[in-house]
Order: sequence, then structure tokens, then C-alpha cells
Amino acid sequence: MTRINLDELNREAGAYFRRLQGTICEALEKFEEGGPDNGRHFREDAWQHPGGGGGITRILLNGRVFEKAGVNFSQVNGTLSEDLVAATPGKGAAFCATGISLVLHPRNPNVPAVHANFRQISKGSGRERTSWFGGGSDLTPFYARREDIIHFHRTWKQVCERHAVADYTRFKTWCDEYFYLPHRGEARGVGGIFFDYLNERLEEVFAFVRDAGDHFLSAYGPILDRRRNDPFTEEQRQWQLLRRGRYVEFNLLHDRGTAFGLRTGGRVESILMSLPPEVRWGYNESPATGTPEAELIGYLKPRDWASEQD
Amino acid sequence: MTRINLDELNREAGAYFRRLQGTICEALEKFEEGGPDNGRHFREDAWQHPGGGGGITRILLNGRVFEKAGVNFSQVNGTLSEDLVAATPGKGAAFCATGISLVLHPRNPNVPAVHANFRQISKGSGRERTSWFGGGSDLTPFYARREDIIHFHRTWKQVCERHAVADYTRFKTWCDEYFYLPHRGEARGVGGIFFDYLNERLEEVFAFVRDAGDHFLSAYGPILDRRRNDPFTEEQRQWQLLRRGRYVEFNLLHDRGTAFGLRTGGRVESILMSLPPEVRWGYNESPATGTPEAELIGYLKPRDWASEQD
Repeated sequence: MTRINLDELNREAGAYFRRLQGTICEALEKFEEGGPDNGRHFREDAWQHPGGGGGITRILLNGRVFEKAGVNFSQVNGTLSEDLVAATPGKGAAFCATGISLVLHPRNPNVPAVHANFRQISKGSGRERTSWFGGGSDLTPFYARREDIIHFHRTWKQVCERHAVADYTRFKTWCDEYFYLPHRGEARGVGGIFFDYLNERLEEVFAFVRDAGDHFLSAYGPILDRRRNDPFTEEQRQWQLLRRGRYVEFNLLHDRGTAFGLRTGGRVESILMSLPPEVRWGYNESPATGTPEAELIGYLKPRDWASEQD
Repeated sequence: MTRINLDELNREAGAYFRRLQGTICEALEKFEEGGPDNGRHFREDAWQHPGGGGGITRILLNGRVFEKAGVNFSQVNGTLSEDLVAATPGKGAAFCATGISLVLHPRNPNVPAVHANFRQISKGSGRERTSWFGGGSDLTPFYARREDIIHFHRTWKQVCERHAVADYTRFKTWCDEYFYLPHRGEARGVGGIFFDYLNERLEEVFAFVRDAGDHFLSAYGPILDRRRNDPFTEEQRQWQLLRRGRYVEFNLLHDRGTAFGLRTGGRVESILMSLPPEVRWGYNESPATGTPEAELIGYLKPRDWASEQD
């Protein structure tokens, strides 16, 4: 294996993530054509990180299709606090990180919310420097639609199968384990893939990450396209708002990325951009047996979706 | 000082908190008279704790005045996990805890939200047993009304001044420090009092806690009474929903009580009852200079309210 220049890898990964942000936002905007003026386009905010570097936040609010769509790019560096040094692999406190992170909250409860994130992180310096990739994508439906979930999982399985460094079964299980709310005893959604600390064969891992990034729209686009015009009732909307509460609970109580961002002095509005636009918390609400809402709850546990028959 | 029987203290504290729950709920229901049928009364759920004991959750939803009012009583025991043993004073892992915890989310943005909690906790057994009281009450207004805030703080100051074991300045500062969102650089609200681990002169501390519990309604009632019929606009409602997002951020990211409850296997719906019924997250929204909303932001930092002139 050629010796990798880690600075160059970081720059190249950053450049790729930045291009991907553009590609994805452009594709998402197409779904907003004909929608209201104030929600048809992503607005862009560039910001600086106190340690060094910065990012570009792109957000679309109040669209016809997307109630809130945030696609964030960042390339930052700085020094990790003591507890974060201990909580991540490798030695040293210096870090540089680049990544793309997106969360889409569609207005229509028939369209699942979706999250994707790809990142390249280096920690330490000189001979002690460790570098890794992390990322993944997962789906959070409000209603149980088998064909949507199977399509999403199959897309990620196919991507993984093209790369010796990507173990689909491992990444799928990792996702199930990561996006889990222990206090609710349920998954945040129906999973997808999740991987972290991939620090060997970095060039091959980078090729896998690019392939995954390039296929986010293949995984989510068809689901969005076929559900976005489905009619829905006020009851279904209320169910969506309640379920979004679980999304907030996960992100604020458990998500490592959120904690990492807030504790490394990240830009708050870009980190918490992942939170849904409108949310509600009820008291002890659970759907009646046999309803479509109860069916969704039954889907919120690990299941080998990619192997299921159509 | 008479030697205190800690079991008896725990029982007496529990009995007091249970009575206080009744008194407070009864008083709050009076504000709902003439309101809609389904939101006029507290409903009650009794529940068991897996380790032992249980609680009584009382909640009022969709009232005319209260969009959500939760008043929770619990008396539980069990075994602390290793990290919780390390994170609390004293030795041993056995614990018993009793307390009352309430959060009121009024519908009208002119009425502040309010929180109060009083608790008695024992950890360890035999000679190694440590017992303490904790608690406090704090106010979260959506609009800056000096007279409300001064009244709230003065009430707590007066309560503290009646008890040698209660140091108002210390408890007030403790509250300012505790209810702080570092990532936002602002307080959750305008403070009040907060105290914890008061493990000496327990009989006197208990007398102070009873006096505080008995004066919750004196601190909050007059504010509620004079603001609850104020007219408000949709813009003010939207501001309230946005500010409620900060409340959620604090409770899920920082609140020790929420973390303690969820990690000791507490009843999820009773713990997360504190979360507001409806919430929204915007992107980079901050009020224009000179608006009443901007004035509120200016209030979200420590200030010696009790000493201010009317």
C-alpha cells in the first residue's frame, strides 16, 4: 500500500464532502419546484470554527415538501478536551475533522425523515496521528411501508458489497445498536448503516465512503418521490409530531455527534439543525392495537430488511 | 441534636410530599374552572418502581390555562449503578428517594413556565448511610416582566430567611449556575433557588423544605393569576414555542434529575412529563433589537432580583 499523506486525505475528503453537499442540495431543490417562494431554495451560511477552519450550512425551511432540510459541511480543527481525548481512539489532543451531515424533515408524515453523515477525522500529530472515517445513513418512517424500507436497506447493502472494506452486516448491526433509545426500548427508526473508526486501508475506505455518499439520493430519492403527494390527515400529522419527539430525545440524550459538536465549540445552530421544526410531547400516548401507528412501533427493532422478499 | 431515625425521616418526607402534591393540584385546578371538560382536572396514574416503591403521577393536559401541568410524587428504592454511586456523595449503592417534582407549561406566553422539585435521598446503609435534601424552584418567562420576577425571587428569599440552614444567596447562585445552557450562553430562565446534598441538621433542613413547598403557590400563583387572561398574538405563541425548545435542550442535555431518573429505571413518562407539549426549533432565529423578545434574552443572566426596587 502506498504511504498515505494524511493531510492530503483530509483535504480530498473535505473537497468531496463539499461537492456532495452541492449535488444533494441541488437534487432536493428539484422537489420544491412550484412550491412557495420562501421555501424553494437552500440558503447558505458560512461560519468559522474558533479552533480553526469552518463550515457551510445549507438549510431549506418551510418548503412544500421539506418542512426543514439541513445539509451541513464542515472542515474544522482544534484541540480536544481531556474527556474527549479519552473517549476517542488514538493519542494526542489535536484534531481535524471534515464531514457532511444532513437531516431531512419532510412535511408529509407518509415520507420518512432521513439522516446521513460522512466524516473523516484525524487525532494527534506526527507518528502518533490516527485517522479514520465514519458515517452512515438511517431512515425514520412514521408509517410502516415495507417496500420503502427494503429499498433503503438494499441500496446500502449493494454499496457495501462493492467494497472489501465495507462489511454490510456489521455496519447494519452497528446502526441498529447505535440508533437505539434504551429508555423507550425502541429504535429511533428502521436503521440503515453506521460505521466509525475505520482507520485501516484508508484509501479503500475513502472509495467506499464516496460510493456511499454518491448513493444517498438513490437510497432516499425514490421513497420521497413516491410518497410526497400522498394525502394525510391531522391525526397522522399529530402522530408525526409525537414521533419527532423521540428523534429529539435520541439526538439530545444519546447522539455522540451532537455531544462532540457542542463540546468542541461547534456552531450550535448548525449542530442542532438536526432537530425537527415542530414537535410535541404527549403523556403516555400509545397507538391502539391494529392501527397503522401500532404497526410502525412493531417495525422499530432490528430486522434483516435487505434479505426480505418484495 | 436528637439522633434522627433516617427511615422515619424518609417516611415523613414522603408523606409531606404526597400531601403537597394534593394541595398544589387542587389549587391549580381552581384556575381551570369554566374551562373545557377534558382539561379541567388532573388525572392520576399510580406506578411501581422496578427496584421497589413507586409513585403517583398527576397530569392535566389541554386545560384553558395549562397546556400541560405535571405534578409527580415518588417514593422509590433500589441499587445505584456504578457510575451513579461515583457521581453522588456518600458510600454504598443502595438508595431510597422520595420527592415531588412539578413542571407547569401554561398556554399563554404571558405566563411563565415554572418548575419546582423537593426531594429527600438516602444512599448506603447502616453507619455508612448518607441522607440529604435537595430541591428548588425556578421561573422561565417568555416575556420580561420585572414585577413578576421580583415577586418570585422575594418569596424564596423570605422563605430562606426564616431558616438558619437556608442560605438564600448561595441557593440563588446555585440556581443560576445549575440552570445554564453553555452551548447557548444563556440561562434557562430567570432562576430562583436550587440546593442539593444538604446532609447536616436534617430536621432543620426538613422544616425549611416544608416551608418552601408550602410557599410554591405564593411564589407562582400571583403571577399566574395576573397574566393568564392577557391577550396574545400568533407571533408571541411562536416565540413561546421556540423558547420551549431551549427548555427541552436543558432537560435532555443537562438536567441531572432527568439523567438520574432515566438511568435508575424510573418511569419514562413521569420523568419526561417535564417536556413541553408543543415545541419548535427554528434556524438561527434571534429577535430584533428593541423588541420585547430581545428584552427577555437580556434577562437570562444572573441578577439580584430580590433586592431590586419595585
